[in-house]
Amino acid sequence: MSLAHGHPYLAIPGPSVTPDRVQRAMHRTSPNIYEGQLVEMVESLWPDLKRLAGTANHVAAYIGNGHGAWEAANTNMFNRGDKALVLSCGRFGHGWAAHARDMGIEVELLDFGTASPADPARVEAALRADTGHRIKAVLTTHVDTASSIRTDVPAIRAAIDAAGHPALFAVDCIASMGCDEYRMDQWGVDVTVAASQKGLMTPPGMAFVWFSEKARVQCGQSDLSTPYWRWGPRAAPEEFWQYWFGTAPTHTLYGLREALDMIFEEGLAQVWTRHDTLARTVWAAFDAWGAGNPAIRLNAARPEWRGRSVTAARIGGEDGTRLRNWCETQAGVTLGIGLGMNSAEDPNADGFLRVAHMGHVNAHMTLGALAVMDAGLKALSIPHGDGALSAAARVAAGGSAPDPASLA
Amino acid sequence: MSLAHGHPYLAIPGPSVTPDRVQRAMHRTSPNIYEGQLVEMVESLWPDLKRLAGTANHVAAYIGNGHGAWEAANTNMFNRGDKALVLSCGRFGHGWAAHARDMGIEVELLDFGTASPADPARVEAALRADTGHRIKAVLTTHVDTASSIRTDVPAIRAAIDAAGHPALFAVDCIASMGCDEYRMDQWGVDVTVAASQKGLMTPPGMAFVWFSEKARVQCGQSDLSTPYWRWGPRAAPEEFWQYWFGTAPTHTLYGLREALDMIFEEGLAQVWTRHDTLARTVWAAFDAWGAGNPAIRLNAARPEWRGRSVTAARIGGEDGTRLRNWCETQAGVTLGIGLGMNSAEDPNADGFLRVAHMGHVNAHMTLGALAVMDAGLKALSIPHGDGALSAAARVAAGGSAPDPASLA
Amino acid sequence: MSLAHGHPYLAIPGPSVTPDRVQRAMHRTSPNIYEGQLVEMVESLWPDLKRLAGTANHVAAYIGNGHGAWEAANTNMFNRGDKALVLSCGRFGHGWAAHARDMGIEVELLDFGTASPADPARVEAALRADTGHRIKAVLTTHVDTASSIRTDVPAIRAAIDAAGHPALFAVDCIASMGCDEYRMDQWGVDVTVAASQKGLMTPPGMAFVWFSEKARVQCGQSDLSTPYWRWGPRAAPEEFWQYWFGTAPTHTLYGLREALDMIFEEGLAQVWTRHDTLARTVWAAFDAWGAGNPAIRLNAARPEWRGRSVTAARIGGEDGTRLRNWCETQAGVTLGIGLGMNSAEDPNADGFLRVAHMGHVNAHMTLGALAVMDAGLKALSIPHGDGALSAAARVAAGGSAPDPASLA
Amino acid sequence: MSLAHGHPYLAIPGPSVTPDRVQRAMHRTSPNIYEGQLVEMVESLWPDLKRLAGTANHVAAYIGNGHGAWEAANTNMFNRGDKALVLSCGRFGHGWAAHARDMGIEVELLDFGTASPADPARVEAALRADTGHRIKAVLTTHVDTASSIRTDVPAIRAAIDAAGHPALFAVDCIASMGCDEYRMDQWGVDVTVAASQKGLMTPPGMAFVWFSEKARVQCGQSDLSTPYWRWGPRAAPEEFWQYWFGTAPTHTLYGLREALDMIFEEGLAQVWTRHDTLARTVWAAFDAWGAGNPAIRLNAARPEWRGRSVTAARIGGEDGTRLRNWCETQAGVTLGIGLGMNSAEDPNADGFLRVAHMGHVNAHMTLGALAVMDAGLKALSIPHGDGALSAAARVAAGGSAPDPASLA
Repeated sequence: MSLAHGHPYLAIPGPSVTPDRVQRAMHRTSPNIYEGQLVEMVESLWPDLKRLAGTANHVAAYIGNGHGAWEAANTNMFNRGDKALVLSCGRFGHGWAAHARDMGIEVELLDFGTASPADPARVEAALRADTGHRIKAVLTTHVDTASSIRTDVPAIRAAIDAAGHPALFAVDCIASMGCDEYRMDQWGVDVTVAASQKGLMTPPGMAFVWFSEKARVQCGQSDLSTPYWRWGPRAAPEEFWQYWFGTAPTHTLYGLREALDMIFEEGLAQVWTRHDTLARTVWAAFDAWGAGNPAIRLNAARPEWRGRSVTAARIGGEDGTRLRNWCETQAGVTLGIGLGMNSAEDPNADGFLRVAHMGHVNAHMTLGALAVMDAGLKALSIPHGDGALSAAARVAAGGSAPDPASLA
Repeated sequence: MSLAHGHPYLAIPGPSVTPDRVQRAMHRTSPNIYEGQLVEMVESLWPDLKRLAGTANHVAAYIGNGHGAWEAANTNMFNRGDKALVLSCGRFGHGWAAHARDMGIEVELLDFGTASPADPARVEAALRADTGHRIKAVLTTHVDTASSIRTDVPAIRAAIDAAGHPALFAVDCIASMGCDEYRMDQWGVDVTVAASQKGLMTPPGMAFVWFSEKARVQCGQSDLSTPYWRWGPRAAPEEFWQYWFGTAPTHTLYGLREALDMIFEEGLAQVWTRHDTLARTVWAAFDAWGAGNPAIRLNAARPEWRGRSVTAARIGGEDGTRLRNWCETQAGVTLGIGLGMNSAEDPNADGFLRVAHMGHVNAHMTLGALAVMDAGLKALSIPHGDGALSAAARVAAGGSAPDPASLA
Repeated sequence: MSLAHGHPYLAIPGPSVTPDRVQRAMHRTSPNIYEGQLVEMVESLWPDLKRLAGTANHVAAYIGNGHGAWEAANTNMFNRGDKALVLSCGRFGHGWAAHARDMGIEVELLDFGTASPADPARVEAALRADTGHRIKAVLTTHVDTASSIRTDVPAIRAAIDAAGHPALFAVDCIASMGCDEYRMDQWGVDVTVAASQKGLMTPPGMAFVWFSEKARVQCGQSDLSTPYWRWGPRAAPEEFWQYWFGTAPTHTLYGLREALDMIFEEGLAQVWTRHDTLARTVWAAFDAWGAGNPAIRLNAARPEWRGRSVTAARIGGEDGTRLRNWCETQAGVTLGIGLGMNSAEDPNADGFLRVAHMGHVNAHMTLGALAVMDAGLKALSIPHGDGALSAAARVAAGGSAPDPASLA
Repeated sequence: MSLAHGHPYLAIPGPSVTPDRVQRAMHRTSPNIYEGQLVEMVESLWPDLKRLAGTANHVAAYIGNGHGAWEAANTNMFNRGDKALVLSCGRFGHGWAAHARDMGIEVELLDFGTASPADPARVEAALRADTGHRIKAVLTTHVDTASSIRTDVPAIRAAIDAAGHPALFAVDCIASMGCDEYRMDQWGVDVTVAASQKGLMTPPGMAFVWFSEKARVQCGQSDLSTPYWRWGPRAAPEEFWQYWFGTAPTHTLYGLREALDMIFEEGLAQVWTRHDTLARTVWAAFDAWGAGNPAIRLNAARPEWRGRSVTAARIGGEDGTRLRNWCETQAGVTLGIGLGMNSAEDPNADGFLRVAHMGHVNAHMTLGALAVMDAGLKALSIPHGDGALSAAARVAAGGSAPDPASLA
């Protein structure tokens, strides 16, 4: 007997829920791409995209996905043989590093595991050791989509400054843009990458690279640069078609315009606060469940280590997979798989899952997902502490979650 | 600080959530109404509509709403001056009676208040008293949308039979069709009315009247009959346009086709079970909340008196309105107002609200609405018992709710 | 070998092409019907609907179709046994008359055939003969959808005045509203009926009745009046639900709002001019075709007798049906059947067809339909005069069509 | 006075008209990208994409546009310093060559002007001259989107074979795939590139590269290869995410699935025939117009040099731009600009325009566009020959156009 028939809720960490407004804005036949409404509309996107990332500098948009954004960043920043210092706190730092190596870039990887953020001290030490300033750029994720670990971007900037190193600072905000507070210029970031399908609430198909004036001057003419990825003409085109190096992604652009309208109608600070509060409802539930079953626990031990757009958690054994299946087939909620989170403790990914709370998400959606998980734990007889939903509701009501220590 | 930005959930008792599939099916330009695909598709609707109501007899469809269905039923069943016995268990029995009186039909109203179903014994007594058989038909709601009281249709049938009365038996299933178990032929109902926008998951704009062979023979040529409402040609047209007495409601028809597909893909019995289970999750939550605040209580004291598509409940004082407002503006859930439920105890409607769980609704939506209400109770400091969400989750998990008596 | 695969064009006289904007506006889940955005939006419709019909008086909207509008008008205007004078210039005057008779209204029918408009002199004579003023209302179509004959409404008004008769004057604008010039108040019309699916560019499902203050005072309390059709509460409701006597047709309302926006963005006078010009392109083509085949001719001999939203024409024998089939299956254009236009000359409807040019229609659509018909005439070896498309293009270019007399 | 209000028709050579079915298929929230319906659906695309191009070998799909397809082809085929022989018959051969040069590939360009196709003899000569076989690949457009010149692909293949040269043979079918007959394997093509937004009727955002077994063996590990563009893992992924090197373009994929269904429901051969016939209607009209004004003429003198998806034509002076503007603002048809077709004779692009007839296009759309152009010529008093529309209609009817020579 399934209770899943109804409006399904996709709570995976991207692509996120496409708002009805965005869907409606995209439902149209193709527009003229040489003049008229589309051309005018596109001009309105750039100031809003910069405002979103907190920069007064440059932005290039691509038909591509998040991996495309990596390739755009790497091919513009590096020459073959340059060196990158890459910080990894989960899976996607490794991914960005692998991409760089594939391009012939030398990579020094600082691996911080999958359950804690980058340690600024190690970053500073690595940079100090690079006395010849061979490191062209420091690369990090803001929030790792797999581990949900959030790195303290200003602290890494401070480490670079403390080391007196001239490297560029590049941040992957694919899982955090439009969810977690982010201030590119104020935080001293040179290159920021993101994509359309998470906090930006637009279907997959567009990638973005913001870059500082310093990056503009130092990059863009590398021997890895290609016509498609070269950011210069995209950020400052002489003709409209150069924004996209060819045909514009017309429908996605209409979706993006609507999504940006939604973000700024709500207010960017309020968007961040909403994500923060909803994230804390999820944490409160996991803390309560975990109080009754030590196998259930959040991947990031400390709140300040946690992204506000997605929560990775350990359920244990095969219970993660069993719970995900129950939620999807019995209750209409699709949770994220425990992507690459297998560890010595849990040698397969079955023990992990992820709950997304990114983009177009409200209290009903998130509390409903938690309530469904609670029902699933009961249905599957997975041990769990009581009061998880009440604790989550208390956070949504504006209160605090109980101190996890008090739950045990 | 609002957590409402996300996919909104409308939990009012009609119109209900329009499924994406239905929306998509309706997104089209007008079709040819004289031949081709639409004409063929329409022929497929009639057997499915009959199967839905549990009848092998007749169905007429109208461009109209629920009130239009009443007018269709009344103008076909009655001659001016005929007498109707109308049972009321909330607001809509009164409404149907008022419509009949307006048409010049004499009405005997049996009023069962707003918190309990029709009493078969009183029905039998009233019919026995009608020794001249002036009563042409007995009219009742199956589930009253305002009170959420469900009448025991077979029991009323038995009362009619026990009285040996030849009256027709007409049931308003507007709030229950496609949600609560209903078996028109098996239960001996002569006339059933419903509309598109509740359990049928289709936008408002279409009404339905099913009628028995007995009704067909006795009715349809009354002096109240009009060309628009006359059910004969609609149920057995000689030409296609007569199904709708004119232009067909093309877009709504495509929506209805998709909605019926969804119902029969899931299985009608399973649809009823889903509604029953979700209703019980709601009751479990209210019982738990009420254990901590006597002002909070379900309108219908006994489970067997409760409709499976909507739950009316008393919150007390102005708390119902405050809670509804909080849920809508802070959390993305719109609950139903306490329509016409003011009473001596609560002289205005502020003390009541309704939670719909009709049509395209799954565990995520309903548990999420309950979790949002729990957060609202907390945010507004409205006293309430603990454990409501856990109790609801237990029901969704396939378990039983705690005995309300044990909660106090 | 078919050339039909592409965007199909439905050129039947209703339902007309649903604009993309209207489709998009309707693609949504159900809104709250008790408060909020829908309720506010609905208030904006009434002034625009009145402006459309050219009246400062009253309007009632119904969930219904054109036949529903007739029933609304008849049940409000007449008591049982009242007399109506009905003018017929095709099929729908007969239809309205039949509806009235069915309701117990005495009908005097003036039949002007199917190829010429109502003769004011006969109307005046009939009214003068009614010395006892038993005729409660004069009913006429503005444009008959079947014959495409347009009646001179001010001339009929003048005839009523000349006769000094107090009858109400009711006009069926179902096929003309939003297409042909119409000025209800200025032209002295008391009751106007229309529906959503033709010039109003909204899917079928809504009907409208505008009425004068004189009609309001004299009507609305007749013994034929029913709660559903009674226009008083709909035109001046005390509560929102009374606008629709129950649940509002939510999705159609959003469509209507968008359609009215489109009309007034373009400008109502310009909408009329566009329809007039496009109608003349069609006439020019038929005149040219007919110059080479006497069997091809417009149904209305004189331009001033022709509606601007639809053109009925005779092709002869079975060629009308053959041509319609070719256009639909080979070229993507669905033309209207020759509804009820069979005559002594053409005993079946095969010899007629109709080309609609109503609502959301531009030069491309209409000239394209004519070009397709021209191709069809050639493909089917139906004799036809040359230069039809060039003549039509000349009209669209702002020029005049050749004098038909010069073509022979 | 404008006649443009109605369904607009975009007749530019890409993006082409998005079918309603494709729009509807894309109107949805994001799906799960790890398992379930989307993952299964994607597997169905590959055989259909291969069938479309006429190959039994390999296909890689990209989130990108046509320029992205060039980059994919160039980075897989060439090593830095390799040599390409590029044939240009308009603008896009130059574009592909410029891309190659930018990547450090040596380019020998054979320029055939803008009004005639590649000459196989010159190709053979150039290859014979390359005795050291430094030329790695021969690159050509099938149909140049700017000039509408179609190159005889089998003839170029024959030239390569005649020269006994081992070069790969790469063809840009961006403007022709799904419109013009194309048989990759049979014609001996090694690499074919296309994109979603023209004959494939899907919004811009996806690019495709088909490659032969020979190309697979020889390419894909070049020093220009990047992780994003590398075709190997995309064509033969070990995991689903590798099809897209990251997040899948979910919505575009649903659109593509629907578009491929439409193509194969109609039948690919029939799709080609439809395009061929519609192209000939356009040529017939231009021939007739040109008979009355020597400034009006098709860009390609001979029918066998003309693409079947788009027609470039000279109108002369500023008349091209005037006519385009009239058609768009007065009649609802947007024609293509004369992209890069300025010449000594017409030093600016004003004298040229393009009429697209690609993808979701039927007789109504194309004949309607021609009729609108004819009206525009009249409205603007641009001299033109008579009978253009009649000639076009004759072609659509299945007949032949008049011999252009007979028109003068």
